[in-house]
This record gives sequence, C-alpha cells and structure tokens, in this order.
Amino acid sequence: MGESVKTRLLRANDVRQIAHDVGIDALMDEVIQALSADFGQSVATDQFSVPPRDGFSYEGETTGLVEWMPVLKAGSHVAVKLVGYHPENPRRHGLPTVLSTLLKFDTTSGHLETIADGTLATAIRTGAASAVASQVLAKSNSEQLGLIGAGAQSVTQLHAITRCFPIREVLVFDVDDANSRSFADRASRLNLNGVNIRICPLQDVVSNADILCTVTSVEVGRGPVMQDDQLRSWLHINAVGSDFPGKTELPLSVLEKSFVCPDFPLQAVKEGECQQLAPDDIGASLPEVITDQESFAKYRDQLTVFDSTGFALEDYSVLRVLEAHAQRLQLGEAVELESHLDPHDPYEGVNSVVPTAARLLRQG
Amino acid sequence: MGESVKTRLLRANDVRQIAHDVGIDALMDEVIQALSADFGQSVATDQFSVPPRDGFSYEGETTGLVEWMPVLKAGSHVAVKLVGYHPENPRRHGLPTVLSTLLKFDTTSGHLETIADGTLATAIRTGAASAVASQVLAKSNSEQLGLIGAGAQSVTQLHAITRCFPIREVLVFDVDDANSRSFADRASRLNLNGVNIRICPLQDVVSNADILCTVTSVEVGRGPVMQDDQLRSWLHINAVGSDFPGKTELPLSVLEKSFVCPDFPLQAVKEGECQQLAPDDIGASLPEVITDQESFAKYRDQLTVFDSTGFALEDYSVLRVLEAHAQRLQLGEAVELESHLDPHDPYEGVNSVVPTAARLLRQG
Repeated sequence: MGESVKTRLLRANDVRQIAHDVGIDALMDEVIQALSADFGQSVATDQFSVPPRDGFSYEGETTGLVEWMPVLKAGSHVAVKLVGYHPENPRRHGLPTVLSTLLKFDTTSGHLETIADGTLATAIRTGAASAVASQVLAKSNSEQLGLIGAGAQSVTQLHAITRCFPIREVLVFDVDDANSRSFADRASRLNLNGVNIRICPLQDVVSNADILCTVTSVEVGRGPVMQDDQLRSWLHINAVGSDFPGKTELPLSVLEKSFVCPDFPLQAVKEGECQQLAPDDIGASLPEVITDQESFAKYRDQLTVFDSTGFALEDYSVLRVLEAHAQRLQLGEAVELESHLDPHDPYEGVNSVVPTAARLLRQG
Repeated sequence: MGESVKTRLLRANDVRQIAHDVGIDALMDEVIQALSADFGQSVATDQFSVPPRDGFSYEGETTGLVEWMPVLKAGSHVAVKLVGYHPENPRRHGLPTVLSTLLKFDTTSGHLETIADGTLATAIRTGAASAVASQVLAKSNSEQLGLIGAGAQSVTQLHAITRCFPIREVLVFDVDDANSRSFADRASRLNLNGVNIRICPLQDVVSNADILCTVTSVEVGRGPVMQDDQLRSWLHINAVGSDFPGKTELPLSVLEKSFVCPDFPLQAVKEGECQQLAPDDIGASLPEVITDQESFAKYRDQLTVFDSTGFALEDYSVLRVLEAHAQRLQLGEAVELESHLDPHDPYEGVNSVVPTAARLLRQG
C-alpha cells in the first residue's frame, strides 16, 4: 500500500486557461466532435449506462436543488456531475444560479482521477449538443439564427451553431432588457466576423429563423415562450431551457407537427418538451439520429425540435476533452486526496502526520 | 459576482491530523455523540432525507462498483459520499479495496463547501454506529467482546465499543491467519489498558461474547459466518459486514429469535441481514430505538441484532465533526474550485487568465 495515486484538481481558472490556450473555437469544435463520437458509441455498443439524474429539491426559505448526474463507461470510467440550482443566488449571494462540479473515477480501482469545476464545461457541452442536433436536422445552408433568451447558455448556443452553419444574422429576444442589451457585448468574445446581431421583437425572431434556440429560464407552468405563428417550414428548434418537471418552452401545436428528437428520452419525458407528448409522438433520440443520419436526412426540410435536457454522457464527453488538454498543458494541481495506506489499519499514520507548523502554508 | 467562496479540501492526511490533534478517543466519543444526536433528529423532525444508495456495479475484467450515498438536511446541507469498492485493488494496484470521498453542499446556494477523503471517517462512523446500537441493546456491564473478522473495520468496532463498555476480553477470529496475527498490533494503537486480546477458534468467540461484531467480507451467498450454537441469552450482535445484495453473515435461526434493529430499513432489506426476514420480523430502526430507549430497554437481556449497512446520515454526522475541528485547527486547504464570475458570460475571464508561468508551481 501507500502507492501515491493523485487526484487532478481543475479549478474554474484552470478550465478557463485551457479555453484560452486551446482557443474557444478549437475547443468548441473538439467538444462537438467528442459528443458526436460518444453519442455514436452509446448506440453502437453497450458501453455507456446513464440513469436519469436524481437529487433533492426544496422550497421554503430557499428554493433550489442539488442533484447528481452519473454515467458509466464500462471498463473505463464513472463520471458524476453534482449540480446546484438556486435561482436567488445572484441577488442574495452574488453567486451564479448554477454551480457544478465534475468528478471522474477509474473503474479499475475506483480512484478519483479528476475533480473539475463544471460551469464552463456545461455551457460548452450544451451548445455543442445543439450544434450536433442542428447538423443532422437543420438545413445546412441556414443563415438566420434566432435566440429566445439571451443569458449565458445563449452565448454558447450561438458559438456552437456558428461553428457549423453559415450564419449571417442572429435575431435575439429576451424578456429582460438588460440581458438583451448586454448580449452583443458578450457575443463579441466570439470573433463572429460578418455576423449581424439584432435585438428584435419576439415575433420577428420566431418568423425569420432557420434555426431557433429557446434558452430561457421560464418558470414552471408559465410556458410557452413563443407562439406557433409564421414558422418557416424547415425551421429547426433547439429547445434548451426545459430541464425541470413542469417547465416547457414550446407550444404543443409546434411539437405536434414537428419531428421531436430528445437527447435522453427517459429524462425528456420527465423534464423536457417531451412532457407534453404521448410516447408515440416522440421521435428517435439524438444518439440514434446521428447513428443513422441518412434515414433522418429528410427532416432537414421539415419542422424539427431537439429536446435538450442535458445529460451525463455530455458531461463525460466534455470532461475527457478538458482532461486531455490539462494533461498536455500541465494544468491543474495533483493532490493527494485519498488515503492509500494499509486498509487494514484505519488509524495508521495518525501518530506520524506532518507537524502542525506546515499547515498554514497550505491555506489558500 | 466574483465574490470568492472557497471549497475546503480535507486530504486523507488532514483527517489524520485531526485525529492526531483531537485524539482518537475524544474523536470517537464525539462521533458517537453526533450520530446519536442526528439519529434522534431524524426521527423527531423531517429534517433529514436519505434515499437508499445507488450506483454502478460491474463484473468482467474488473469486478467492483462506484456508488453515491446522498443525504439532505433540510435548510442546511446536502452531503454525498462517493464510494468505490474494488476487491482486487490490494493485489492489482496496491490500493485499498474501498476508496471514498465526502462532499458537502450548502443548500442556501449550492456551494460545494467541503471535499474530504472518506476512509478514516467511514471507519470511525461505522464503529460509532455499533456503539450507539450496543448502548441501547446490549447489557451495560458487557465484558467480553467477540470479533468475527479482523480487518480494518474491526479495529474501529473494538475502539468504539470499548469507549462505552467495561470490556476486559476481546475474542477474535478471522479466516485469514494474517489478519488474525496482525490484529493485536493494529489494536495496540488504541491504548486499551487491561484489555486482553485473544485469537481463538470461531466457536469460542461465538459462545463467550456478550457483544459480538461480525465484520467480514464474506462473499455473496457464502454466509453465514457463524453457527447458532451456545449463544449467550443476552448476546447483542452488530452485523456490520452485510452491505450488498445476497451478502449476509448471520444464520436465519439467530435472526428469527432476535430483536433485529436495522440502521436504515429501506437499505437493510436490500443489502443487510434483513434480506433474510419478512417485513413483520424486522424491528424498529436504530434511530427509532434511540428515540424511545425506555420501550426497548427490555431487549438488553435478550438476543438482539443491529443490522448495520452504513448509510449517508452517518457520513453527514462524522463529516460535521471533522469540519468543526478542521475549522478550529485551520486544517485543510481553501481552494477556489467553482466559477463565481458573471453567470451570463460563460467565456468571461478566458482572455485574462493568469499567465502560463504560474502553472508548474502548483503541481503537487
């Protein structure tokens, strides 16, 4: 015993450093590739097991939830994302609404290989998932992108989709004027040369989009966030905001005339747009669609919806991309977190720990 | 945004340092107290929610599992223990069979407050749980303690029970001679003055114990680990080893004539000795028993079994004890793990991360 096996700690700042060093365009492209590859693997083999996420939600003095999103890649790894969702964080604590941490365990020993902040990773993989879905379900010459909701996730939706389509115009609507006003500024980090970003009324967004992303934090029971009015007949919608029981963004009539492709059916029927549909009205899942693109190519000219609830396989995909770069760039800290002493002797080492004087040096 | 809220990282060595500074006797006493208090709270109020643990188990090239054990204390915290169980670790990787990590989240914001190695914490809380059960179900003047199985968990069983009973003799049996031989050495860290530790045949352990702990890693379907032969009529058994479907340690006949008290009934019927029993043959849970000790006092003179599967509430109890000491002793490292930047702008900070030169300094 006693072999030192360390845990790589990727702080939020390390993840940003990876994005900086790799470049956000190259990183997004890689995550789009990784998602496609892992989605394909998940259908072609039995390698991945993904239970629906579970957690504790509560109301009262604080409304929120803490949940866990586990995935097994057989013979390889278990990844678990722990997610906190607390809508009053910005106002009450000056903290983001969503905080998340990614953990990855080696299944040959159970060793915790990696602990990583999940914020940027989640935003990137959620954008990438919409890009993957749009690549197979939207017109390849789509030029107009609509965004309903202009928060954080909209930035990575825009980013991911402009990596895959010749977008010339982005039409943006948010119920919150401050979000709308700041959006162009936030999007300016994306180096979108020749792309015109226009804040406009909701109906203009809806009726002029080739691809539309709904990325709102609409409250439970308060949807839909748009009307079924003058949609382009080939419109592809990425419905990203639905991720909670009772929370939906799209009118039922749109869903009923669309090919609806959930990311993860077991979860989408509980938390996504698929809550509104009977099982027979739900199409193939995204992993199935990308595995058999020819059969689904006909939908590019039709109304389609990607029901994106976000699932653990995507977190695994983005984490493996980030880890590979962290390894290459020597980013993150290797910490001796786990006890690897003689497992028969729980108190071993208690009498020989490093002296107290060394402690304060490690205070962050 | 941007308020710095850090995560306390308690490495295995920090936990050992706490045990060293506090003293293992005082620490065990505190954990016994904390468990009793939290068990009581869990019955008296609706504060705690504990789902049965869940996870991925696999066989093939590697046999093992990775599981998660979550608990909510309403209005306060969520704690999750991630556990890896890989029986071939010692032989193949020079690592312990069980590795575990404790996480604790603040439910007012979802902030990850603490990451701690779970090895010593688990051993201590498992011992403490048996002490709590024995205090209410065993004869208070018990002098002879039997241990079947002499691995790591036996050390903390012995430790916890000697903190609460006037034990004079410890009778030990293990199918593995190496475990038996090394036990006295490992137990010598406990400063058990006047306690005689004797390795002896299984039947001597069984028939001479006032309190008996079964702490084996018997394989699924290979139990029981003892016979129903010449048990003292007041014997209290802590059945600690059952923690997996199909794995049991006690003969059915012993269970049938005993008052059987599970730690966590929902889990015990799946993984514990209670697997062998019909619902009507299962007694009150340990939290219920300690809440109404008078009603259960009569069982001190009778045959009783504590069916200990280990559950997340216990992990919460030991973690809060460790954290309080870490705080007081300024142990552990405060790391800026989570992103607390503007949540509307996922790529914020990517262009202004600390320069590359600073990186290697943080390599452990």
